[in-house]
Amino acid sequence: MNFHDRALLPRGFRCTSRNVGLKPTAKDLALFVSDVDAAAAALFTRNQFPGAPVVLGRETIRAGRLRAIVANSKCSNVATGAQGLENARRMAGAAAVEIGATADRVLVSSTGVIGVQLPIETIERGLRGIAAELQHDPLIGAEGIMTTDTHPKAQSCSVGDTTIAWVAKGSGMIEPNMATMLVYIFTDAAIDAPSLDRMLREAAHISFNMLSIDTDTSTSDTCAILANGLAGAVAADAFQSALTAGCVRMTEILARDGEGATHLVRATVRGAATEADARRVAKSLVNSPLVKTMVHGADPNVGRLLMAVGKCVDCVMRPDATDAWINGHAVVRAGERLDFDEAAVRAALADETVDLEVSLGVGEVAATAYGCDLTAGYIAENAAYYSS
Amino acid sequence: MNFHDRALLPRGFRCTSRNVGLKPTAKDLALFVSDVDAAAAALFTRNQFPGAPVVLGRETIRAGRLRAIVANSKCSNVATGAQGLENARRMAGAAAVEIGATADRVLVSSTGVIGVQLPIETIERGLRGIAAELQHDPLIGAEGIMTTDTHPKAQSCSVGDTTIAWVAKGSGMIEPNMATMLVYIFTDAAIDAPSLDRMLREAAHISFNMLSIDTDTSTSDTCAILANGLAGAVAADAFQSALTAGCVRMTEILARDGEGATHLVRATVRGAATEADARRVAKSLVNSPLVKTMVHGADPNVGRLLMAVGKCVDCVMRPDATDAWINGHAVVRAGERLDFDEAAVRAALADETVDLEVSLGVGEVAATAYGCDLTAGYIAENAAYYSS
Repeated sequence: MNFHDRALLPRGFRCTSRNVGLKPTAKDLALFVSDVDAAAAALFTRNQFPGAPVVLGRETIRAGRLRAIVANSKCSNVATGAQGLENARRMAGAAAVEIGATADRVLVSSTGVIGVQLPIETIERGLRGIAAELQHDPLIGAEGIMTTDTHPKAQSCSVGDTTIAWVAKGSGMIEPNMATMLVYIFTDAAIDAPSLDRMLREAAHISFNMLSIDTDTSTSDTCAILANGLAGAVAADAFQSALTAGCVRMTEILARDGEGATHLVRATVRGAATEADARRVAKSLVNSPLVKTMVHGADPNVGRLLMAVGKCVDCVMRPDATDAWINGHAVVRAGERLDFDEAAVRAALADETVDLEVSLGVGEVAATAYGCDLTAGYIAENAAYYSS
Repeated sequence: MNFHDRALLPRGFRCTSRNVGLKPTAKDLALFVSDVDAAAAALFTRNQFPGAPVVLGRETIRAGRLRAIVANSKCSNVATGAQGLENARRMAGAAAVEIGATADRVLVSSTGVIGVQLPIETIERGLRGIAAELQHDPLIGAEGIMTTDTHPKAQSCSVGDTTIAWVAKGSGMIEPNMATMLVYIFTDAAIDAPSLDRMLREAAHISFNMLSIDTDTSTSDTCAILANGLAGAVAADAFQSALTAGCVRMTEILARDGEGATHLVRATVRGAATEADARRVAKSLVNSPLVKTMVHGADPNVGRLLMAVGKCVDCVMRPDATDAWINGHAVVRAGERLDFDEAAVRAALADETVDLEVSLGVGEVAATAYGCDLTAGYIAENAAYYSS
């Protein structure tokens, strides 16, 4: 898959972002608009305390049509009751007025602190006149939804005559379950809503749903795709391939920018009896604090890999058939630590990307999970997030 | 339950510890001995890569009789294959010779780095003449099994004419599953092995199995109880109560000394539909990095409590019936953040013990989990554990 050097939005999509006063000076609101109604699908968090925008979004997406996405950072509008839901509706309505659409065609997202009412008047005021600023660079939109992200996140690629673009945010409270943090995908391909839904689920299954920064599933996770059809039809297989490849790539971008992270960690488990086992063991590896700190310290305490594999007590495995590699260096064979070249493995662990591979030796199924190392930066960032 | 001000071993039990050369100077080997054969039971890790001492221990405990426990720190004898199992047997044999028993009456434990062969000759040499040093202070034995523990751990209490003593180690790689880190319990009460096994399981269910320092299940977890009968019979109910209370108390001692920890965190979940739900949600609270860093920072970002509750997607709950408290301060009611006194909650979070309480409002069942905060100390300790 060839991704564009500089991300661009597909035909008929524009976006912008602003500081409306939720944060002191940084951008805190973004708007993404299609010139025409787009077929749409979305996945949301499975957290049982979903934010008001997620509750509203489930209702909105039922029609399978969207014109716009409006999103704010700083306040997630979660645990805010009936007032919160009313505020989410008002936010959709205010955006709709600006672009000449109806509120039921606007998806709302909010990200930030949980348990604080949305300053809705500030947002309504801040949205006025925003349509005049709409432009084509997706990074501008991405800037409006950043929280602890260190950089705005967007990418795009071509599939035949059509284009797909991804805009995302997310660096903490990430172990998506059914969806991910905020990820918006735009395409000018002509694809109907049920197909989009199926394609998005297939892509998310091996990308966003295999991502974990810190095991904590956000109450606001949202992944939406809009297809406005302006570039016409596309080969379904080619589109699915590109969609999946882009979702995996964006997953890696999110993992790399995990709060405090200095390494991308990819854990691939092969030779599993079932897909569920492969996914569970791969997730266990990227979620283990002792594996994450091993990567951070670049200290080849490889027994921790076996610990993290073995603690999946319900998965089928054979310790005496288990092998493991770190960036291609064999470190465990048949369940025993090998007498490997420590300096070489230490150097491999210092690479920006650390690939952990484990073969369970009991079947043919594989899966890959995405995560990052655990550092003092994560602690510093989260021990005083609320007040900061 | 009244615990003794100064821990003591029950009648007929003695212990000692030594530096045998596994560590530069600190103690690295401990021996616990009963003067006569004791009825015994034990629980071991469910990790699928158990250490050689766990494999051997499962075999040894089948007879329900023990004379001694020999344990070393620095090297866990895990992922060491047939050689590792042979070394564990030699370690049991060497201890047996010293105390005039047979190897099948000696339980072996090893804790420390995974994937390194036990220096068995060093241990055999180090055990010679050790019987002459046996004495009555359990803290001396506890000193021999410390790894990253900041202090040796022992306690005791009386039940009727009998005494129970606990000796433990553990501060990282702790989310026991079926048992705990190394916990040895000694009593002079007369209780048969099957009863001991039942009583130990009942106590561990609500104590060690509800403990999590870092979600990582060790490959060496062992919890054993020895009853030598020298003080005669005891009322079963009273004994069970004391055993359970002591296991809960030792669980709190272990949680408090979690790697890098500065707070004990107790999460109590009430109003759950089932015990499994109550336990899962309570564990989710003490395992959430964002809840742990909130406690560390004493920053009342209480929405994180709802996030950690809601991410238990398979548990029955009603967001609009969910209430939460921090050290008695109501912070969430009916799923919404209350307008609480922030200074007071900030002060409460700064207490050494932080009690998180959540009522799910859907049933009558409760459970408590035990953990600690997450600090830069944990990262520092584990980013370079292997080499240190």
